[in-house]
Amino acid sequence: MSNVLAINAGSSSLKFQLIEMPEETVKAIGLVERIGLADSVFKIEVDGKKEKTVGDIPDHAVAVKKLLDALISTGVVASFDEIDAVGHRVVHGGEYFDDSVLITDDVIAKIVETSELAPLHNPANLTGIYAFQEILPNVPMVAVFDTAFHQTMPNTSYLYSLPKEYYDDFGIRKYGFHGTSHKYVSERAADLMGVPIEKLRLISCHIGNGASITAIEGGKSIDTSMGFTPLAGVTMGTRSGDLDPALIPYIMEKTGKTAEEVIDVFNKESGMLALSGFSSDLRDIQEQVDTNPRAELALDVFAERIHKYIGSYAAKMSGVDAIIFTAGVGENSSAVREKILHGLEFMGVYWDPKLNETRGDERFINYPHSPVKVLIIPTNEEVVIARDTLRLAK
Amino acid sequence: MSNVLAINAGSSSLKFQLIEMPEETVKAIGLVERIGLADSVFKIEVDGKKEKTVGDIPDHAVAVKKLLDALISTGVVASFDEIDAVGHRVVHGGEYFDDSVLITDDVIAKIVETSELAPLHNPANLTGIYAFQEILPNVPMVAVFDTAFHQTMPNTSYLYSLPKEYYDDFGIRKYGFHGTSHKYVSERAADLMGVPIEKLRLISCHIGNGASITAIEGGKSIDTSMGFTPLAGVTMGTRSGDLDPALIPYIMEKTGKTAEEVIDVFNKESGMLALSGFSSDLRDIQEQVDTNPRAELALDVFAERIHKYIGSYAAKMSGVDAIIFTAGVGENSSAVREKILHGLEFMGVYWDPKLNETRGDERFINYPHSPVKVLIIPTNEEVVIARDTLRLAK
Repeated sequence: MSNVLAINAGSSSLKFQLIEMPEETVKAIGLVERIGLADSVFKIEVDGKKEKTVGDIPDHAVAVKKLLDALISTGVVASFDEIDAVGHRVVHGGEYFDDSVLITDDVIAKIVETSELAPLHNPANLTGIYAFQEILPNVPMVAVFDTAFHQTMPNTSYLYSLPKEYYDDFGIRKYGFHGTSHKYVSERAADLMGVPIEKLRLISCHIGNGASITAIEGGKSIDTSMGFTPLAGVTMGTRSGDLDPALIPYIMEKTGKTAEEVIDVFNKESGMLALSGFSSDLRDIQEQVDTNPRAELALDVFAERIHKYIGSYAAKMSGVDAIIFTAGVGENSSAVREKILHGLEFMGVYWDPKLNETRGDERFINYPHSPVKVLIIPTNEEVVIARDTLRLAK
Repeated sequence: MSNVLAINAGSSSLKFQLIEMPEETVKAIGLVERIGLADSVFKIEVDGKKEKTVGDIPDHAVAVKKLLDALISTGVVASFDEIDAVGHRVVHGGEYFDDSVLITDDVIAKIVETSELAPLHNPANLTGIYAFQEILPNVPMVAVFDTAFHQTMPNTSYLYSLPKEYYDDFGIRKYGFHGTSHKYVSERAADLMGVPIEKLRLISCHIGNGASITAIEGGKSIDTSMGFTPLAGVTMGTRSGDLDPALIPYIMEKTGKTAEEVIDVFNKESGMLALSGFSSDLRDIQEQVDTNPRAELALDVFAERIHKYIGSYAAKMSGVDAIIFTAGVGENSSAVREKILHGLEFMGVYWDPKLNETRGDERFINYPHSPVKVLIIPTNEEVVIARDTLRLAK
């Protein structure tokens, strides 16, 4: 029995779960917000009991100290010695990592090097790693990369049709993200279907505020909608997804913005927020869908882009055995799933509107006779982090 | 019986056909190249007899005068009076034109205004219109737009997920191109299938040096792969097609190029030229496909992007009744068609490898039992120009 801490560090936040392995029992779950800002917030939940404190937390090391102290004060562990391993989510592993890895100096150097590809995320993830190194120097740590699962893509998928030196010299290629989630739900789908994953063609739709669609053949990612960055692919909460690249100089000329500023608009002021004109949150949009044409437009565009990716990936794999929905919207919005699935009968997708409306945990929502299965599988990236950490830290 | 001149004017070129309507008999076909440059070239073919002259042609008016004189000297017409109407290809009609139109001052003003959206093409097309106005002031002229056929797209297809003012103020939306070709081949497909076009769901693949894929439902374009400009969509001869827009500032930073220069690379140094490393011409690439891995890569990427668009548009229309191939590559490369069609059986596409290898004119290449028909239809944009001109110039 091991206690594994699964950590997801952002630039001013740190999410954690203490998971007992291999039972996969979550013993504590919590969050530190506003690190380095005034009135930082610390939240922890143990056995259904929630605690929240507000007070300055100047840096990640202090945040880590605070969360470890809280694990002791809430009785989850008796001492730091009971933390057996720490697993860190790291957004970008470049081409170095096609799997999770035990963290060494060399690994850290590579994560630092790859920061150029994920300037917002990797440095934040590193802050979490450094903080734990300082406080628990002898506890093994593992890095779990969002990009690793997609490293199996063939070059026909990951190469852009751009000059070769852009790939050779600058690492420009499709990397893909949400890999931990796509991996988890695809493996769960195979389990639930009772079919070895090696024999399955799956399309996994991770639809949250960010969204990506992945074609998974024989358990391996062979294509995914996000690209060099998480901007590409489908329409998202505030992100535009794919568009004509020639728009950028045109918008620069029209607005006086720099290229960076235009991409900032594409990342933060576009997507469903721009289409609806009032919110990036699907729940807000759904509330107005019958009364506000722009809410309806946002919902339609959002669903249709995903619908088209499903068709495209089914074509890529010469058919599909199951479609999986996961993450906030994918798990909870029956209306979005309905719009996405509508009209896919021609490729063997027969889904049951009644099952689609039910609430619950993991479940099938296809008719029994449907050649293509449709599943809702709540994602669980922390469990993947804990599993990989247990596997590699032993 | 009318003699209609179909004109396609570029910045330094002018292509023409004299077509007898409504019989659609081509009586003369020709080309002026290097207008405004030294050693301009004039070519005309009448009844299989070819003429070519080299000599300075300073501007489009002189080119027009020369082609009209040649029509007389070759005996095609006895005088200018026998030219009943002139039809001009115009690349961009913005949102003004959803059909061809009789050219008036107002129409010209709108084509001028729309030049901002097609700065390379519309001014060149206008040069041809002005030249004919000068020399044949009393002959009715018609403009036939590459974008018009796509004006039926719903807003869910043509709107980008970008701030609304980009559309309202700057005209930023998907326009689509090759409309004349997509319209022609879709109507021919319906004729050949013996089914009213209103009842058909078609996917038209115009694959030349430029390439675009269109979803046509009930005779109307409802989605197309090109976008605000012809850069978007599938991989082409020298164009990248869709990619992660966030690449642009990254490439600018790495190479010191401006945004315009990066887009120039995407338009002129990318696509199959970049993937293969030696040619944008599919014939060159096919020759090396067995010996050069990069030639194979270029061909695979090229075909796969189109293959995925077919899946995506089939999903959009809840199935497809026929897939059409046209333009240079689409009509002539059985190897590319094979790669594109491979593995579409799951959506009812059963194509006959033997028929795919045959040469010929319009033809079906599916097995008789295939629910989805597959057709090769040579495109004929000049005939559409002549038909629309006859219809509107009467």
